[in-house]
Amino acid sequence: MSSTIDLAVIPGDGIGPEVTTEALAVLHSAVGGGVAIAETHYSLGAEHYLETGEILHDETMERLARHDAILFGAVGGDPRDARLAGGLIERGLLLRLRFAFDHYVNLRPTRLFPGVTSPLSSPGEVDFVVVREGTEGPYVGNGGSIRVGTPHEIANEVSVNTAFGVERVVRFGFAQAAARSCRLTLVHKTNVLVNAGSLWQRTVDRIAPEFPGVNVDYLHVDAATIFLVTDPARFDVIVTDNLFGDILTDLAGAISGGIGLAASGNINPDRAFPSMFEPVHGSAPDIAGQQKADPTAAILSAALLLEHLGHPEAATRITTAVAADLAGRGSERRSTREVGAAILAAVER
Amino acid sequence: MSSTIDLAVIPGDGIGPEVTTEALAVLHSAVGGGVAIAETHYSLGAEHYLETGEILHDETMERLARHDAILFGAVGGDPRDARLAGGLIERGLLLRLRFAFDHYVNLRPTRLFPGVTSPLSSPGEVDFVVVREGTEGPYVGNGGSIRVGTPHEIANEVSVNTAFGVERVVRFGFAQAAARSCRLTLVHKTNVLVNAGSLWQRTVDRIAPEFPGVNVDYLHVDAATIFLVTDPARFDVIVTDNLFGDILTDLAGAISGGIGLAASGNINPDRAFPSMFEPVHGSAPDIAGQQKADPTAAILSAALLLEHLGHPEAATRITTAVAADLAGRGSERRSTREVGAAILAAVER
Ligand SMILES: CC(C)[C@H](C(=O)O)[C@@H](O)C(=O)O
Ligand SMILES: CC(C)[C@H](C(=O)O)[C@@H](O)C(=O)O
Repeated sequence: MSSTIDLAVIPGDGIGPEVTTEALAVLHSAVGGGVAIAETHYSLGAEHYLETGEILHDETMERLARHDAILFGAVGGDPRDARLAGGLIERGLLLRLRFAFDHYVNLRPTRLFPGVTSPLSSPGEVDFVVVREGTEGPYVGNGGSIRVGTPHEIANEVSVNTAFGVERVVRFGFAQAAARSCRLTLVHKTNVLVNAGSLWQRTVDRIAPEFPGVNVDYLHVDAATIFLVTDPARFDVIVTDNLFGDILTDLAGAISGGIGLAASGNINPDRAFPSMFEPVHGSAPDIAGQQKADPTAAILSAALLLEHLGHPEAATRITTAVAADLAGRGSERRSTREVGAAILAAVER
Repeated sequence: MSSTIDLAVIPGDGIGPEVTTEALAVLHSAVGGGVAIAETHYSLGAEHYLETGEILHDETMERLARHDAILFGAVGGDPRDARLAGGLIERGLLLRLRFAFDHYVNLRPTRLFPGVTSPLSSPGEVDFVVVREGTEGPYVGNGGSIRVGTPHEIANEVSVNTAFGVERVVRFGFAQAAARSCRLTLVHKTNVLVNAGSLWQRTVDRIAPEFPGVNVDYLHVDAATIFLVTDPARFDVIVTDNLFGDILTDLAGAISGGIGLAASGNINPDRAFPSMFEPVHGSAPDIAGQQKADPTAAILSAALLLEHLGHPEAATRITTAVAADLAGRGSERRSTREVGAAILAAVER
């Protein structure tokens, strides 16, 4: 365990910088005196692109690759800005990092903390983890169009799924389940997406005997959304494809108090590249710079970062502080800074 | 307007026959003396396949094609039965009918009826329609696998989207919105699925000026799931791709009282082929034959059928009767037959 964390910070656009500031303050406090954190800030995102023309240079990638981990705020500009159309920044920056740094596990814990209001009238105990595949599926960018703009336009999207890619994330899902409540749910759409679905199902079936204590079940993605609102307590670990995971984790965030609380880790478990930790929410340009954003998701992402880097006690200090703050949140609105300061104070107690 | 409806009935598997029986009784009563309904029952589904080896013969298709409409129960056998794996019946029967009969509009109204409990604590007014594309997207079955069962397996799924296919369903969505509360929401994932997403977005933008009274907005599919649980009242008409529509409508069913109430129409608006009406729920083999299923979704599907065939008053008689029954439902459990009889009695009043 190194005594210095060499951290890359990408605050990004919109509310990204605001929430990242709070996450960094909490991070420093949580690791305490024994561990130093060396921060290198990278100016990247929609704003940076519009100013400089850079989305992500190869040299920047090389520099990022040398850090221990990346703390990521949020990227994305005005959704109506034509210069950014088609997810230019999301794909050129966020997805490029996930793919280049082989973040094949997109880990998204969902927990309804005591004191947090769910839009569900009786949510029950919500405490599960979505293990979303991060480097395959419909995210590979292998589609294409012909005859664009004509009445004969054809636009294809290709979902690519490999035995290599599915096996490693399924194995990670089983390991998570074994370390939690031993229930793994594969979510896919095997009755329609028969090629990919069959690969996922066979992979789960093949690996299951290696984890005899883990109970395995399967849900179609459509049915999974039903259970997320009628019986979220049924879930412990969900393992799923990149796109299904994207959809399910926004819904999971919503039922557990909003994506202002939802943290995520883009993880390379092999440690070949730095992993990257980010709130599930976006850059929310409409409320940027107004101290309105909830920094909790960014702060919890910092806890995932510490967990990943081998500082579980420091991670627990953060989640405990967040839980304490959430338990006491009333209806009064606090600024980003106030929420950050309250959690920081709880960490320091 | 013909005075005889030449109806094909596919009761199917599991709870399909039970709910279809109730829907037919209500259908006959709702049309009254002026319209005769000639029913032709087709034995199709998982059970029929396991007995006879037929999923759907070409001659059966030709006979089905000659009817005015199809009332469909539910198909699908025991999910663990290996002889039915990979959605054999769903694809060979249900999807084959949707594709062959060019059901390019999969119409799925969502309404939280007074008296019905939602899992959301404050759902607000839920009354929207999902116009799901029915003949393209990842449902086309154009994927494939190589090196199956080896560590080098690659499984691809291809989503095919055409200007022709997108335009006609988008136009239908606009027309629906114009006839309702004039709000159309395109749901897609334009920041990742850039080829298909761009086609959908450009098509909506191009057709919008033809419907100047309709307000248009856009949501990524992940964000749409959030709004479905935090502010479903924001929706009037959603137009979306086949797979996103599949996912969103199960969630929509769940927030509006369960898919036991969710009706759907697989519609060919050009009337080149018979349209097909079915509950969104499946065959639920676990409760089949026990009179436990709620026939309401099947009954509301019959109302959509009447609407489509030009009998709006008869359709309204059914929805009014359903609303009356739902408003008075207590906590006591009624059998499929009892619910059907209660709605039938309300139609006859
Ligand atoms: C911004 C977008 C590309 C991204 C995704 O689709 O993965 C986001 O929705 C997420 O979930 O992290
Ligand atoms: C059974 C299945 C193929 C079908 C679909 O995915 O369309 C069902 O989920 C539905 O929504 O009608």
